[in-house]
Amino acid sequence: MPPYAAVLMTGRPDGACLVAANYFDTHRETLDGALAAIDSRGFWSAYPEVPSKRIYGEDARGEGMAAWKGRLGKTFGIDQPGVVGTVNAESSPYGIETNIDYPSVDLNQLLPAACVAMDSWKRASIDERTGVCLEILDRLNKRSFEMAFAVMHTTGQGFMMAFQAGGPHAQDRGLEAIAYAWRAMKACPESATWSKRVSKTETVTLQKTWRIVPRGVAVTVGCSTFPTWNGYPGIFASLVTGNAVIVKPHPGAVLPLAMTVEIAREVLAEAGFDANLMTLACDSFDEPVAQELVVRDDVAIVDFTGGNAFGDWIEANATQARVYSEKAGVNTVVLDGCDDVRAMTGNLAFSLCLYSGQMCTSPQNIFIPESGIDTPEGVLSFDDTCAALVQALDWFLSDPARANEVLGAIQSPATLDRQAAAKGAGGIVLRDGVAVPHERFDAARLSSPLIIQVDEGDTTLFEQEHFGPVVYIVKTASTSRSIEIAADGAKRLGGLTAALWTRSDDVIDAAVDAFTDAGVALSVNLTGQIWVNQSAAFSDFHVSGANPSGNATLCDAAFVSDRFRTVATRIPVPAPVEEAAC
Amino acid sequence: MPPYAAVLMTGRPDGACLVAANYFDTHRETLDGALAAIDSRGFWSAYPEVPSKRIYGEDARGEGMAAWKGRLGKTFGIDQPGVVGTVNAESSPYGIETNIDYPSVDLNQLLPAACVAMDSWKRASIDERTGVCLEILDRLNKRSFEMAFAVMHTTGQGFMMAFQAGGPHAQDRGLEAIAYAWRAMKACPESATWSKRVSKTETVTLQKTWRIVPRGVAVTVGCSTFPTWNGYPGIFASLVTGNAVIVKPHPGAVLPLAMTVEIAREVLAEAGFDANLMTLACDSFDEPVAQELVVRDDVAIVDFTGGNAFGDWIEANATQARVYSEKAGVNTVVLDGCDDVRAMTGNLAFSLCLYSGQMCTSPQNIFIPESGIDTPEGVLSFDDTCAALVQALDWFLSDPARANEVLGAIQSPATLDRQAAAKGAGGIVLRDGVAVPHERFDAARLSSPLIIQVDEGDTTLFEQEHFGPVVYIVKTASTSRSIEIAADGAKRLGGLTAALWTRSDDVIDAAVDAFTDAGVALSVNLTGQIWVNQSAAFSDFHVSGANPSGNATLCDAAFVSDRFRTVATRIPVPAPVEEAAC
Repeated sequence: MPPYAAVLMTGRPDGACLVAANYFDTHRETLDGALAAIDSRGFWSAYPEVPSKRIYGEDARGEGMAAWKGRLGKTFGIDQPGVVGTVNAESSPYGIETNIDYPSVDLNQLLPAACVAMDSWKRASIDERTGVCLEILDRLNKRSFEMAFAVMHTTGQGFMMAFQAGGPHAQDRGLEAIAYAWRAMKACPESATWSKRVSKTETVTLQKTWRIVPRGVAVTVGCSTFPTWNGYPGIFASLVTGNAVIVKPHPGAVLPLAMTVEIAREVLAEAGFDANLMTLACDSFDEPVAQELVVRDDVAIVDFTGGNAFGDWIEANATQARVYSEKAGVNTVVLDGCDDVRAMTGNLAFSLCLYSGQMCTSPQNIFIPESGIDTPEGVLSFDDTCAALVQALDWFLSDPARANEVLGAIQSPATLDRQAAAKGAGGIVLRDGVAVPHERFDAARLSSPLIIQVDEGDTTLFEQEHFGPVVYIVKTASTSRSIEIAADGAKRLGGLTAALWTRSDDVIDAAVDAFTDAGVALSVNLTGQIWVNQSAAFSDFHVSGANPSGNATLCDAAFVSDRFRTVATRIPVPAPVEEAAC
Repeated sequence: MPPYAAVLMTGRPDGACLVAANYFDTHRETLDGALAAIDSRGFWSAYPEVPSKRIYGEDARGEGMAAWKGRLGKTFGIDQPGVVGTVNAESSPYGIETNIDYPSVDLNQLLPAACVAMDSWKRASIDERTGVCLEILDRLNKRSFEMAFAVMHTTGQGFMMAFQAGGPHAQDRGLEAIAYAWRAMKACPESATWSKRVSKTETVTLQKTWRIVPRGVAVTVGCSTFPTWNGYPGIFASLVTGNAVIVKPHPGAVLPLAMTVEIAREVLAEAGFDANLMTLACDSFDEPVAQELVVRDDVAIVDFTGGNAFGDWIEANATQARVYSEKAGVNTVVLDGCDDVRAMTGNLAFSLCLYSGQMCTSPQNIFIPESGIDTPEGVLSFDDTCAALVQALDWFLSDPARANEVLGAIQSPATLDRQAAAKGAGGIVLRDGVAVPHERFDAARLSSPLIIQVDEGDTTLFEQEHFGPVVYIVKTASTSRSIEIAADGAKRLGGLTAALWTRSDDVIDAAVDAFTDAGVALSVNLTGQIWVNQSAAFSDFHVSGANPSGNATLCDAAFVSDRFRTVATRIPVPAPVEEAAC
């Protein structure tokens, strides 16, 4: 290897960054586990989802709660450029006073700082950047209880979901993105010897070296319901590939991402890099900053999770950037039959209640043939099937503690307005959506799911996303018609998940063809402790990118491989001995 | 595995397509070689670049020429939907009469046919689609002589370049794209068993299956200079991932891509698939069809090679599609010093003459410090360096046969107009660009390179692409200034290649940093049979995507992995024995 080859590879003759290299060694096993998992796609998790003392420590919950409480009523301190004031638009769906002031920023100061921060970061080795990102995730994992309370009291999730989806599951999704990005960057060697016989007497030999070049500044526009789970993949995929990341949280769910930025900046600084590789850009509902931010020339990547209106606007206007979007979709359920009515309705009722339909994977439209469904006891009529489902909901919500925990709170008052509007819009109300008291938080905003029965012709009612606790039961002419309407709707309106219950392999085959072509992940005959809403890191792709609900998939190669580029240098060197010999 | 798992994987209970499967087996070694090559990035080629009888057959050249001549003066026959007339805008830069009528199409018939064609193709297995694409490449390789004449008499390339770049090298680039796409599709298994312990007593086990889903109709907008070399990567990447491809050749260089479509349709039909997976959409300069085509709703992918104006328009308007572009750039040379002036000027002179600067990798601006360059014999003054370069060109062009073969012909009269305009625009003409007679074709359109000396302040002259035989020698204050101007220009205007000659490792380090950050592939101190214009499949990335010269890289994961999506189905199955046991 010529003397300057080592320099060419990293551009840093002064050698590797020891702290970052150590981080990589420390977390190498975690990375290897993730790399194996994305190949096998069997069950795997790096960060324990059980909030147990044994795993997280005897006092972890108490310390986490104390740390979270310690942030309330104060200004969120962050030492970054461009802080010009504070905003405070966050409130707990559980009705308690959080009152945290977050920094508002001047983009004209923040963006240049983000650009400068990439200078040393882009010269670090792939493993060094990966080590830093893995250390950030590890520290986030240790703070999972604090994060759980931050997520619970911004999104309205029940504690268990807030802990799991906001903590370990989000961390797993971040790790998954890092694993894909690491593999994508390693796909090209840092250097190679290219030797070609160009004539009987001459062999040309070139030393080729390749460097990873970041795209530029990445912006993550966070959502209000799963700020970390939806945010981490883009944040870590962009950071590990050499880009600087500006995090723009949803004004109503800031703390989880603000904590993330805080921890990331700590690790970056400790590793000797510019902490401005990760910065915070907060705004308010009255003075949003995202529209101005995402179209700036320096912004090369945008990750967006949220509604169609703004998502479509970003895709149409941020043409200077590579935009990864997760937008709305209408998720569907097709009931054709089942082996155990109670098991089916119990599983479905849980899916309908879970976080009050505020998951992008929550089912909204349930298609049931007018002729009823097939069961071992014979046909269960349409009306009896509806009644069985309502009964399952009644039973599920009859236990206040269970109802509180699973329903969670409604993140935004607008969601309750949507529910009220849906109630008045038409159809037969089979079960009303009513306020549900919370055992511990008097002012909490909870509601039971509103169940409305409509006919397949009432497309104006059910062929739109009613984000929140709104469920339509659609009476159809047949199961094949149910599949047709559901799949066609997903193609036109977007859709992330579909659930099917049936006793017929032919129906399964037809549904798989239809929903696969519509880009919808299909779950068949689920019972017990697994629900259609669930999307497991390392195994389930979240958002197919094959319908209008978004173009980004968590996680696949397409999600990471365009966040960096590879640039080569080639220099003649003496031919390898064996070549020279002949 | 549950009985329907096999069905779920491919959606084709009737089993695999035997012909396609056989193609895959036949060409498996070729694919394996390509997969190994994109990992090592050392020299490798699947298709021999030497037009020798021993390799291609005793009569290959004669048969190829006869086959090509047999097409002249006739209508190019193609049995595809939507053919409504003919267009004829092609002419040989060598001045001979070709006069081929090509089909003009009605997009309202062509697009639906392309959509329908994907129905069975998307259900084929990854290996089946790959086998078909490899068979197409194999047949194209066997037709390399016929292709060479088709490329020569549309692009104006000399015969040797037309054979190599139009044939084997283009086929290698296509194979490279197939290899990346095959790996990207195989990254997710077709099926997996996901088993998770959800409680002390319950384990949930799901059979998960994944299918590849194409994005939709892909359109390749061909260029006039390297229609196959620039076209094959996108064409084969889209086809192998399940999409239908509509090929829209440049009106002035139709035959090479028309032949490609013809051969692809033969193979697709023989394998039992819909030949309309690959169709031809020809147009004329007067009635272009590309603008209407690329914005159609059914078009999900666009591959474009050509000028900035139309490329920028497509990127701004074809927002319904994923656009991969290769646009213009200004390529640069920095002269700081060299160990052998004759070797350096000889190598550079060849690069300047090769295909008369009509390669997107051709150097245009040569930066030389006013203080001259460093040589073993001492400083060579600026004027003497210019003189040495001009002398090298004089010698090179002094042999008519050599000059004819290397210069090739000028593809478009507009290129000669640009040369004339550049001559009149300013600067000192060091060597005039003049008509060069061709030994065999009296009416051939040949020109020698125009060499103009300017100062670094004359940015309005040299900071734009003068596609064709126009070279600027820019006198700069210093080599560091040369690097600064060249790299900065690439960031703003785009640039694919840079060449540096120097005797200083410090200059190499500075140049590598500057050009890498500008997204430009740098070649250092080239002499002998290797030139900056050359981009080798399986080793050299063509277009970094890191500056305005384009967003597509031939080839990397980003170029292929977003041409398809992956959609899942999950169904409960009995827990694996070892799980059930515990």
